[in-house]
Amino acid sequence: MDNPLDPALAATPATEPETRSREPSQARDPAGLVARFEADRPLTMDSGAELAPFQVAYQTAGTLNSARTNAVLICHALTGDQHFAHPHPVTGKPGWWTTLVGPGKPIDTDRYFVVCSNVIGSCMGSTGPASIDPGTGAAYGLDFPLVTIRDMVRAQAMLLDHLGIDDLFLCVGGSMGGMQVLQWASLYPERVFAAMPIATGARHSAQNIAFHEVGRQAIMADPAWADGRYLEAGTRPSKGLGVARMGAHITYLSEPALHRKFGRRFQGGSAPTFSFNADFQIESYLRHQGLSFVERFDANAYLYLTRAMDYFDLAADHGGVLANAFKGTKTRFCVVSFTSDWLFPTADSRAIVHALNAASAPVAFVEVESDKGHDAFLLDEPMLFSAARGFVDAAARARGL
Amino acid sequence: MDNPLDPALAATPATEPETRSREPSQARDPAGLVARFEADRPLTMDSGAELAPFQVAYQTAGTLNSARTNAVLICHALTGDQHFAHPHPVTGKPGWWTTLVGPGKPIDTDRYFVVCSNVIGSCMGSTGPASIDPGTGAAYGLDFPLVTIRDMVRAQAMLLDHLGIDDLFLCVGGSMGGMQVLQWASLYPERVFAAMPIATGARHSAQNIAFHEVGRQAIMADPAWADGRYLEAGTRPSKGLGVARMGAHITYLSEPALHRKFGRRFQGGSAPTFSFNADFQIESYLRHQGLSFVERFDANAYLYLTRAMDYFDLAADHGGVLANAFKGTKTRFCVVSFTSDWLFPTADSRAIVHALNAASAPVAFVEVESDKGHDAFLLDEPMLFSAARGFVDAAARARGL
Repeated sequence: MDNPLDPALAATPATEPETRSREPSQARDPAGLVARFEADRPLTMDSGAELAPFQVAYQTAGTLNSARTNAVLICHALTGDQHFAHPHPVTGKPGWWTTLVGPGKPIDTDRYFVVCSNVIGSCMGSTGPASIDPGTGAAYGLDFPLVTIRDMVRAQAMLLDHLGIDDLFLCVGGSMGGMQVLQWASLYPERVFAAMPIATGARHSAQNIAFHEVGRQAIMADPAWADGRYLEAGTRPSKGLGVARMGAHITYLSEPALHRKFGRRFQGGSAPTFSFNADFQIESYLRHQGLSFVERFDANAYLYLTRAMDYFDLAADHGGVLANAFKGTKTRFCVVSFTSDWLFPTADSRAIVHALNAASAPVAFVEVESDKGHDAFLLDEPMLFSAARGFVDAAARARGL
Repeated sequence: MDNPLDPALAATPATEPETRSREPSQARDPAGLVARFEADRPLTMDSGAELAPFQVAYQTAGTLNSARTNAVLICHALTGDQHFAHPHPVTGKPGWWTTLVGPGKPIDTDRYFVVCSNVIGSCMGSTGPASIDPGTGAAYGLDFPLVTIRDMVRAQAMLLDHLGIDDLFLCVGGSMGGMQVLQWASLYPERVFAAMPIATGARHSAQNIAFHEVGRQAIMADPAWADGRYLEAGTRPSKGLGVARMGAHITYLSEPALHRKFGRRFQGGSAPTFSFNADFQIESYLRHQGLSFVERFDANAYLYLTRAMDYFDLAADHGGVLANAFKGTKTRFCVVSFTSDWLFPTADSRAIVHALNAASAPVAFVEVESDKGHDAFLLDEPMLFSAARGFVDAAARARGL
């Protein structure tokens, strides 16, 4: 098979007829690299379903060293994808984490081999509800099995096996990505040398579930959703998905950031129009957020991934005691929160730190002073960068890198 | 004309043919009392529109004293109405402020004559977008002029004129009701002896505008909304309105209250169903909130009233200086906030208090320790009750009541 670590050599188009080899096939499409697992390599899911065949789309940056000890796994957030370093194939925007990851950056692609895969259940090349169900020849829609954070991590582990990477130097991610980091450290402790969960929690709060439920109901209320069969119906629930995105987007920011960016400023004037036009700049901004999101995201994937976050409760999986999720771990942790993040407030990070302390795990905790809200992990936050650089550099020394 | 202060005497049904008297007519329907203002008594609105004819539906409790000095005006919140003391004609539930208002309560209907009117633009008997436009014979829909908080207050003042009440002993309300209280004190200072704005702000924040905009977009995204002409179309945008309500309802509560009430408890079981059913109790609760709301509220009215709150900016109406809104006032104020209210946080109340201080107004400020969020003003909050009782009793003594 092609060398999966050299994209230039991995030239099999993803659209070619399925191969039936026992080894996962290696393919390449505009979304990046794709690892395909055939019927004999199903993904065993928490729901009890076995997903097969399935594929994982991913991107890499940097070079794996000969000892294969310098691999970093980046886990993306709800509406993120594998395009962390390279321009996005749909939007053309720079990779979403070029602030933190790249040559000379805190996660230095000159030193580390960095992998990021689109999560199972999403829509950027990995198998999800918009993929074709081989049993029917039509898109899965709601027949796709419900996905959990643990299912995402299992699929990532299969990808790493496929890439010949036994263990990770670092596993890092924010928000839903941070949930995956915690799940990695809990499920495969021997495979994670260092873990950096950012702006996340070990479980989704009632308020967060509530916001997600409103988003799902907005999608399902759109007649164009067609009970999830919109791909066959030739419709797209863009209005519902747009409303869902608008509502969610508010929770990614902070009241001070909204005030600073928009305040009560009027769009193109200094007075209200006495209409339902987007009078205020904040309205115009939100509408734009909704419109641009629906161009790049699948509505059913949004349902599945929000559900996965809602279901996440690492303590519940370990007898109700979060420390048990990390018992005996050798992984070193750096937990990061942001002062103005009200979606995953610092208290959620503290709960993780307390559990890690109880499990005698080495843990650093950084609360970054920021008014940018939850999305701060994606933005220019020098204190985040210096914390990440310090943690990663120290871990590299400990790892002999 | 009938004595408007005695509901038993005000027997004209609201549905009878319009009278053409110069005096507003007095009518009664299941929604309570209705004061009707004919074409010669238009409501002059901030948009420049003149609304005529129009009517104001209201309820009263208690008896006006012979000196007419014991009148209290209650201003209701966004989705509230005039049924503060009596069971609601649609839901059958007790009056919405029987916690605070009633015989022997802090606002004592044995001592005071209490009036509450449905705001202009709403849908419980006062003229709004669901009312018939006499020019077309069809419902106004979006042809109804945009409404402001000041328009609501002007209509209330016309109602008080109609009732022969020159000035108010007390003007009180929470949330959008509190905005009206502030507007009353600013617009008609000589008519307000005491004012109690609760859980409110002198302007709507960018985040609050954002949440409202999402709700409006949810309604407008519903094809059954039919560009606001759903009454003629024979449809109802119930799904969109339900989604709007679900989202808004989250903002009325607090994260601690949601955690206490629902946490991550599953509906009818202890495990996820791996489906998009309402697995969590919080989901079921929110869906119920959405469903029950659409039975009692008009979607266009929701658009208009959210817009009125968004437009509210009392300082902007006074050269950008909030203190100017209260210059020379003789009104005494009690400003109340709740510690867990993140829709109108204590900082918003402090800004009001600072402005009142700068205007040399007598003002008391009470921050009630509560984890119930914004809706605390409607709930059993002993510290709110004692603060209200103390303020009202002292004002009554000062007023010689």
